[in-house]
Formats: sequence, C-alpha cells, structure tokens
Amino acid sequence: MERIVQLIEEDLNKLEGAIEELLTTKIPFIKEVVYHIVKSGGKRIRPVLLIHSARMCAADGDKHIPYAAIVEFIHTATLLHDDVVDNAETRRGSRTANEIWGNEPSVLVGDFLFSKSFDLMIENNNAKILRIMAKVTTGLAEGEILELLKTSDIGTTQEEYFEVISKKTAVLLSAACEIGAVLGRVDARKRAALRKYGYNVGMAFQLTDDILDYVSDDTVLGKHAGTDLKEGKVTLPLIQALKSATEKERNQVRKTLDGRHVTVRDFEKVRGIIRKYGGIEYTLEISRKYVEDAKQSLKSFPSSPHRDALLDFADYIVTRKT
Amino acid sequence: MERIVQLIEEDLNKLEGAIEELLTTKIPFIKEVVYHIVKSGGKRIRPVLLIHSARMCAADGDKHIPYAAIVEFIHTATLLHDDVVDNAETRRGSRTANEIWGNEPSVLVGDFLFSKSFDLMIENNNAKILRIMAKVTTGLAEGEILELLKTSDIGTTQEEYFEVISKKTAVLLSAACEIGAVLGRVDARKRAALRKYGYNVGMAFQLTDDILDYVSDDTVLGKHAGTDLKEGKVTLPLIQALKSATEKERNQVRKTLDGRHVTVRDFEKVRGIIRKYGGIEYTLEISRKYVEDAKQSLKSFPSSPHRDALLDFADYIVTRKT
Repeated sequence: MERIVQLIEEDLNKLEGAIEELLTTKIPFIKEVVYHIVKSGGKRIRPVLLIHSARMCAADGDKHIPYAAIVEFIHTATLLHDDVVDNAETRRGSRTANEIWGNEPSVLVGDFLFSKSFDLMIENNNAKILRIMAKVTTGLAEGEILELLKTSDIGTTQEEYFEVISKKTAVLLSAACEIGAVLGRVDARKRAALRKYGYNVGMAFQLTDDILDYVSDDTVLGKHAGTDLKEGKVTLPLIQALKSATEKERNQVRKTLDGRHVTVRDFEKVRGIIRKYGGIEYTLEISRKYVEDAKQSLKSFPSSPHRDALLDFADYIVTRKT
Repeated sequence: MERIVQLIEEDLNKLEGAIEELLTTKIPFIKEVVYHIVKSGGKRIRPVLLIHSARMCAADGDKHIPYAAIVEFIHTATLLHDDVVDNAETRRGSRTANEIWGNEPSVLVGDFLFSKSFDLMIENNNAKILRIMAKVTTGLAEGEILELLKTSDIGTTQEEYFEVISKKTAVLLSAACEIGAVLGRVDARKRAALRKYGYNVGMAFQLTDDILDYVSDDTVLGKHAGTDLKEGKVTLPLIQALKSATEKERNQVRKTLDGRHVTVRDFEKVRGIIRKYGGIEYTLEISRKYVEDAKQSLKSFPSSPHRDALLDFADYIVTRKT
C-alpha cells in the first residue's frame, strides 16, 4: 500500500487540507465528531482510487480533490450510522462516536455529512458526476437495510450476500473510479472499464474484510476478530460452510447467532465449522477472481505509473492483513 | 385548513400517487416503514405550500408534483431520525417506527429517503432548485445538532432558540415556497418574496408548535402535551419565563429538565411558572408578528385564489389547535 500511496502523496496532502476546508460549519462539535472518525487512521481507500483513476485518465488541475473529500465524507457518514446500527463499541482500535457521545450525535452528524456531500457535489456542478452519485447513496442505504433484514438469518443465501456487499461496498468504490474517468474526459469504453474495475475491487475488498473477521487476531486487525458473528452478520465464509454442515453444526451456528453474548468458545466452534468445510478458501478464491477481473479491466489503458498503482491495489486487496 | 386544501385537491391526489410511484425500491420493508409514517395523517404542510406557491406563480403542467413528494420525503426522513434522537414512543397518536422496529431501521430508512430525494432532484434536473436544496438539508442537520447540544440547558438564549427553529423548520418551508416560485419562473423579487413568506410561516409554525406543547391537552394535540419538557427541549415559552423567574423557580425547572421522568406534577409546576411570567403570550405575540410579515410578503402578487389560500394558511398557523 505504501508504494501506491507515495505516488499521489501530494494529492493526498491536498485531500487532508480539503477535508478540513470543506467541512464548513459554525458548530465546533460537528467537526469534533467528524475528525474523531476521519482522523482515526482510515486508509482513504475511496479517495486513493479516485485520485489514481483521475490521474491515469490525465485529469488536470485539482478538480478531483473535492470529489476525493466527498467520497470520504460519504464513507464516514455510513460508518457513523453503521456503528449505531451495529451497536459497535470500537472501530480501528478507538472507541466509536456512539460510545463516546451516544447515538444521537452519530445519527445527526452522519446526516450532516451526507447533506454536506450533496451540497459540495452541487457546488462542483458536474452533471455526469451528479448522476453517478445519485444512485450510489440510495444503493448504500438499501445495502445496509438488506443486511439488517438478514441479521442472524442462517438461511441467508449466497445471492443475498452478494447483493448486500455489492450495494453497501462495491458501488461506492466503483463510483470513485468512475468519477476519476469523468474528470479525465475519457471515452465511454474507458469510463465503463474503470467503473467495472472499481466494482470488482470493491467486491474483493468486502470479501477479504469478511475473511479477515475470521482469520485475523485482534492485534493484527485493529478491530476484534469475530465482530461479524457477534453482530449476527452471516458472511460468505459461514454461508459456504453451512451448505455442507451437519444438523448439529447448524444448530451450533444458529445458537451463536441468536445469542446475546458470543464467547471465545462459541467463536472458536463456529470458526472450526468454517475451517472444516473450507469456507475461507472458497471465499478467498472468489475474491481472487474479482481481483483478476478488476485487473483485466485496466488492459484498455496504456501502461503508466497510475495504472500500475491500480493493478497493485487490486493485488493488495486480497493479500492485506488489516 | 380544509378550504386551503380543497383548492388543490387534484394536485394533492396526484401527490399521493407520486409518493407511491417515486418510492421505488425492491425492498418491501422500506416501503412498510416509510408508509407507516407517511400515511399516518400528516398534514402535508410542505407540499401544500409548494403547490400553492407554484400555482400562484402560474407554474403549468405537473412539474411541481415530484418536488412536492421530495419535500415530504425529506421531512419524513427527519421525523424518522428525530424520533430516534428523542427516543420518542408515539407520533400523531401512533407508535413511532423506532418503537415498532427498533432504532436501526429508522436510521437506515431515513438515510434511504434522504438519498432518494437527492436522486429524484437530480433526475428532475433543475439547477436552481438543486442549489436551493443543497443548503437546506445541511441546515436541517445543523439545526437538529444545535438543539441536541442545548438539551436540558436552562441557559439557552432566545437567539440560540431562534437559530435552532430557523434551521430545523423554517428553511425547509422556505425552500418549498421558493421551489414553487422557480417552477413558475417569476422574477427575482417575487421569488425572494415567496422565500421570505415560507421562512416567516415556518418560524410561526414552530413557535406555535412549541406553544401547543404547553397549552393543549392530549386529546386535542394527538401527541402528549409536555413532550418538549420531557425531552429536555428548552423552547421560547420557557426561555421567556426564565428571564424573570426566581432562583427557586429556576431550580424547579432545572430539576425537571435534568430528571429522567417528568411527572404530571412536575409539568404542572413548570407550566405554572410559564403562565406566571407570560411565556405563552410572549411567544404567541412573536409568532403573530411572523405571520404578519409572511402575509406582507405576498402583497407583491396580484390577488388570486392561491394567494388567498397562502394568506389563510399564515393565519391558520397561529390559530390551529393541533
């Protein structure tokens, strides 16, 4: 990831400036809540994708900087609301905003960030980008709602899971890349290629996240392993294992998903079931396929340091440990 | 209110159709939550203002109908999130969405409605209206956050109160009227006049709401009197009374605002203090002044049934019992 970031260091510094500059409000408390989450060591994945896409498409000037800030704002808003929905206590090793200030500010500051993003998009006045983003946030909300409806549902299908991660993760990464293409004024074919790259990278990203929740330990992940299970999220490693699990094993999983407290022992039992039926390998394989498809999409672009960075990024997605 | 509504009955019927038609989603649960609140007998105040404004400005066709739906969607989204923030159990005599389904769907379906509104505005593609609305939702969030920060704060000033109600209520009503003006393509002066009308009507509306919370009884209001006090909302009737209250009375108010449960006796004591210092009359007087200013703004328009309806609406605001 370091090399990927180095190439756009100047843009990323400008992004940090833009995040502070664009977050205009007379209410200091709003900034306090936003900075708590924005400055907590997130990887700026969406801005990184947007900036490399824009640069690869030879977008000139700094027009992409505010959009990089906007996609990070939208992502931050979803994190604030997600943590309320999941009753999450920690994120990236820090206490969540809802833990510190309660649910109310998290809901309202999330709303503020969504609105501010909308406001900034209109100010920047690019009709094509507006049309891209119009569908994205609706999709995000639908993805979160679908996920909520499937909470603790042992019958969640692979198709339902893919619909959830597509909407809650892949569409925003896809939009970030497509915005870069629009700013670089490339042709429709290249624009579609970048949209596809972002989508596939987004799918691989979420699949890997869901794997890490079962294979990493706390010190590596910076968040507790087993969080998904605790929150009743039925992800692909588990869905795959459940396809072959015995009735006794299914009952164990059901009991754990329904329970209020997941003990280390419960977690280990479920992890054992996933291991037994190859749930991790299966998910990793699909994730790798998305990465290959993503890289394939970039073939229509001539070789360049930014294209290399995007290719590296796709590989990084599935090999990362955090 | 009946006469005001009758004149635009056809448009309001179309609005109900548009609400259903525009709420496109493949997830039936989203519609269930939205309809629970949208179909619970709200007065459609924002659409009514928008439609009369558009018709008074001779807007032709049905272009105003989707915008009428959009302002109602935005309002509904804020209600869903407000009820989470306020831990409200009932609204308009029905159980709130958060009471029925929990906080999570209320947060996410609210997000969906905000995003859908944004999506529909972009689809309808009117740059002037987009610019109006860009600032509105950010203001809404800021107003709610300011209100939250002032919860149970006996030191809340009149200026702070006015900032809260301006942002959380008046700006959206103002925008609804201004959208009507834009659709009718009237000149800048008339557009400003309608914006001002909506703003002043919005201020009067919230002031009256805050009065009703102290003077109405349950059967009339359809929501419990004393809700604001229970939720720690320090509104103008109370702020005015506190200006002259004795130390003992201030302590009584402070104790009630800080307490977890407000008894009928607590409420009656605070209501007694408000009555003693004329908090209701003072608020009513200011509210009436806003109504007069609102009506004044309409003088630049020639007489018409729609102008009469807007004049009536301004009067209705301060005389209504619910």
